[in-house]
Amino acid sequence: MREVAIIGVGMTKFGELWDKTIRDIFVEAALNAIKDAGVDRIDSMYVGNMTAGLFIGQEHIGALMADYLGMAPIPAMRVESACASGGMALRAGLMEVCSGMSEIVLVGGVEKMWSGADATYALSTAADQEYECYQGITFPGLYALIARSHMHKYGTTRKQLSMVSVKNHHNGSLNPNAQFGRETTIDAVTNATMVADPLTLMDCSPVSDGGACAIICPMDIAKKYTDTPVKILASGAATDTIALHQRKEITDLNAVKVAGEKAYKMAGLSPKDIDLAEVHDCFTIAEICAIEELGFCEKGKAGEFTEKGETGIEGKMPINTSGGLKSKGHPVGATGVAQAVEIVEQLRGNAGKRQVKDAKIGLTQNMGGSGASSVVHIFGVC
Amino acid sequence: MREVAIIGVGMTKFGELWDKTIRDIFVEAALNAIKDAGVDRIDSMYVGNMTAGLFIGQEHIGALMADYLGMAPIPAMRVESACASGGMALRAGLMEVCSGMSEIVLVGGVEKMWSGADATYALSTAADQEYECYQGITFPGLYALIARSHMHKYGTTRKQLSMVSVKNHHNGSLNPNAQFGRETTIDAVTNATMVADPLTLMDCSPVSDGGACAIICPMDIAKKYTDTPVKILASGAATDTIALHQRKEITDLNAVKVAGEKAYKMAGLSPKDIDLAEVHDCFTIAEICAIEELGFCEKGKAGEFTEKGETGIEGKMPINTSGGLKSKGHPVGATGVAQAVEIVEQLRGNAGKRQVKDAKIGLTQNMGGSGASSVVHIFGVC
Repeated sequence: MREVAIIGVGMTKFGELWDKTIRDIFVEAALNAIKDAGVDRIDSMYVGNMTAGLFIGQEHIGALMADYLGMAPIPAMRVESACASGGMALRAGLMEVCSGMSEIVLVGGVEKMWSGADATYALSTAADQEYECYQGITFPGLYALIARSHMHKYGTTRKQLSMVSVKNHHNGSLNPNAQFGRETTIDAVTNATMVADPLTLMDCSPVSDGGACAIICPMDIAKKYTDTPVKILASGAATDTIALHQRKEITDLNAVKVAGEKAYKMAGLSPKDIDLAEVHDCFTIAEICAIEELGFCEKGKAGEFTEKGETGIEGKMPINTSGGLKSKGHPVGATGVAQAVEIVEQLRGNAGKRQVKDAKIGLTQNMGGSGASSVVHIFGVC
Repeated sequence: MREVAIIGVGMTKFGELWDKTIRDIFVEAALNAIKDAGVDRIDSMYVGNMTAGLFIGQEHIGALMADYLGMAPIPAMRVESACASGGMALRAGLMEVCSGMSEIVLVGGVEKMWSGADATYALSTAADQEYECYQGITFPGLYALIARSHMHKYGTTRKQLSMVSVKNHHNGSLNPNAQFGRETTIDAVTNATMVADPLTLMDCSPVSDGGACAIICPMDIAKKYTDTPVKILASGAATDTIALHQRKEITDLNAVKVAGEKAYKMAGLSPKDIDLAEVHDCFTIAEICAIEELGFCEKGKAGEFTEKGETGIEGKMPINTSGGLKSKGHPVGATGVAQAVEIVEQLRGNAGKRQVKDAKIGLTQNMGGSGASSVVHIFGVC
């Protein structure tokens, strides 16, 4: 397959952006990426967005963003895979460049969640409406089931879950774009308002507005635009049953495992070759499960691995140096692309106080629903 | 680019499918396509869907359909470009096969519109919420503006608009999958309930449930599955301003023109090489504008061209032999793929009483909103 690189990235600050519409947010992120790449044209664009229809009564997000970016008549398409929409937009753009159809493609994601709409309802549409939501369950409840099961099966502790949040808030305190750029403590997480036992408010990623974009092109022209292209070494995607109760074992996120295996195979790499990763910590337990499925530690041992500090910026396997979804924020359609933004900044050596030493290869894992969709990308410096 | 063929197609009957859920509808269409292709595996899938979030409170449509088709853990992605979602799903799948990432890809579209939800509101989310819908305009109103302007500028008559509907109902009467498979008359169209002057109820495509799927693969393995592969000769896509009032001339559908030009260039063909086309007749005026932008007749002359019978099955340029959106139905996310289903049946010589004589090259044109998205595909027998 054609070799493809990221030559520019950009994002907005994540948070409650009450003074910005969805188009303002996307255009800001896109212009940041275009400026960073220094391109004077875009051939095609992909926009990851989960549910602007429910949040703000607006579908047709691809054409809308092309229009407001001043890019019409270029082709534009919205991609939706729930909270994995951003990662899937990157994958779709990658395939367009690999196909030879286009050269310079903008891949982005955006979500406007602070709109007055019922966020819990809107997000619940990523679960099985007929067999899950109809019974009244929402995402905190689904992930609480996974957490309780993981604690029971593997001995994962409440303190270990809290340490995921503490670590991610620490990293987020070093990220100027983070929604909650401040430290927290084990006690503060553990004793926060209970949302769905055992998950407290501080185990849950927030409701966020935000956008993130990247410019990709064939490797052979990337050097024309930048001295530090970041190569997309692999893309793996997979699905699982949409309903949690239909899985054999709810602590297994099979789509994450399969997507990871596909990506490792495509890149010719194994988990030990990865210098850092951004994983989908929509809830603290999701980070625990993800790093196990991606092979960064043994199955059932991610709690311990976290407690030992191995997932910190200076640990064996730095996870979510950006602050992750928990602290940086989780504008659902943008998250997958924002993960790539962080990896690019790290591989360029531009991550400031969050910088992982000698980072050469990074991975992103973006997930939809309670794991029914997952997409993994691996990136490397050239 | 890698050569790609359609090796199987399938759809459901379009209409008010009150006894079927969205997953039932998609799976029925997908199984029909899989059976038609005779494949024993699917590597990846794309699902065009406009707004299941608003119609039935369900997003995450890609993973849901992979699950209910029994295909997890294969990658699945939903594509949304309003009413062009189906055509864009075909385009995305085409790019995946061209990229070399996969071989056998299922591209489909589905919409469940009869759900109790407010269809006019849900569809309006394809327009500009902030600058169009907020003022109270809906799609019949937007297309009525185009129609009135076309009549004023080019002398297109009320009778000519009616003849689009009469012709499409005649074709639909020959299509067992059509929602309204019956003839109508010029008087019946002209004198039907006024929706938005000059458009009557019989100028408007209906609210429909339905699904359509196609199986695509590289040309070099297509012959293993079928003696009649249909080659995808070209894919062109384009955008325009999302709001109608921002265009220089509202009778010009620039995205249709640009997408068509790209497709003709890619195929090395011109309008005169096309034997038949399925175009996006969401309203009768849309068919008039589309066939002008695609170059099948002179600009401003499509009314006359239609009146002369040139767009009939035995005319110079048969348009919407399936019955089009008007008579076959318009389950918005499925429409673009259903257009390809008709072209495949025609190029295989399997279209029965709707068969266009010696059909060798067919074109589909699928559109979103009032023309902010358009995608054109050209197909040929090998």
